[in-house]
Amino acid sequence: MIKNNKKIILASASPRRRELLAQIGMEFQVLPSGAEEKTGNCSPSEMVKELSHLKALDIFQKLSGGEQAQSLVIGADTVVALDNNIMGKPGNKENAVKMLSDLQGRTHQVYTGVTLIWQEDKSMVQREISFYEETSVTMFPMTPEEIEAYVATGEPMDKAGAYGIQGKCAAYIKGISGDYNNVVGLPIGRLYQEMKKI
Amino acid sequence: MIKNNKKIILASASPRRRELLAQIGMEFQVLPSGAEEKTGNCSPSEMVKELSHLKALDIFQKLSGGEQAQSLVIGADTVVALDNNIMGKPGNKENAVKMLSDLQGRTHQVYTGVTLIWQEDKSMVQREISFYEETSVTMFPMTPEEIEAYVATGEPMDKAGAYGIQGKCAAYIKGISGDYNNVVGLPIGRLYQEMKKI
Repeated sequence: MIKNNKKIILASASPRRRELLAQIGMEFQVLPSGAEEKTGNCSPSEMVKELSHLKALDIFQKLSGGEQAQSLVIGADTVVALDNNIMGKPGNKENAVKMLSDLQGRTHQVYTGVTLIWQEDKSMVQREISFYEETSVTMFPMTPEEIEAYVATGEPMDKAGAYGIQGKCAAYIKGISGDYNNVVGLPIGRLYQEMKKI
Repeated sequence: MIKNNKKIILASASPRRRELLAQIGMEFQVLPSGAEEKTGNCSPSEMVKELSHLKALDIFQKLSGGEQAQSLVIGADTVVALDNNIMGKPGNKENAVKMLSDLQGRTHQVYTGVTLIWQEDKSMVQREISFYEETSVTMFPMTPEEIEAYVATGEPMDKAGAYGIQGKCAAYIKGISGDYNNVVGLPIGRLYQEMKKI
């Protein structure tokens, strides 16, 4: 629904981010960033903005001059925070069980940072905007058996905080405050509104 | 993930409700209710509970005695309310444009009522529980052109309030407070928790 003369490039390998862009009818290309996800930032909101910037910049810099003039690159990064302690992807089953045991029955925050990089048509000046969205998620209590069964599905492994709100974990979500798609991995409403301004 | 000796029957033709039950790994059968959706109830929360009861009862009564003993029937109904004025499905494009023009840039409420009907194993007594969930949804402002373009996609036609939060309308959703799947049409978290108690 966006009329844009730029070719949109998503700098992320996440199938969920891809699905969200496709859901609102956006045409785009996927070029996953290999940027190292390192930051000295301890604030979740600043951290996801910085990491989304690194991903978008990594891909923008790999484009040729001609491609840069025609492209708008989107980078995104998502983390889960409980009492301001940041949770990334669990990596293994033990960590997944630990994360879910901490999250169950409580409210935590999900932060997604988004960075857009493009070149202005006439001035050829490189432009960039970064923003983040914060969503609070409240989970029902889970028994150790429910946590084990959920981890055994394999769903938690590649997800920050070890759960997928859009998957089987929906059974354990009491409610949220904020944008749902921000928890899935991309605040598609805010992103669309920001892209309209460009 | 539910250990239940009952055969679960969804008394709804909605593909979205079917997808939500499947999403959390539930096995079930679909028998859409043809119950007339009439109610004298003006409170949205009482109305959706009553309509979900009528749908579940319609299907439960059509089962044979033997089937009733083995089944758990789920009925559900969803409405959108703006300033306590209830919006159902738009029916035509003009109504869809009107509803979206009213909803855009503001916060409204979505109510889904759910009724479960089953028979107790030993006593053969018919049991029933009804509940509802309320979710507040805040939309970004939409221009008349955006509303026209969205209605032209056809997505609003079969949906209460003339929008699908899980579809292209995601571009216009600022945030919610409550359960997201309740807006889609079935509060799957609460439903799972209620079914565990049975």
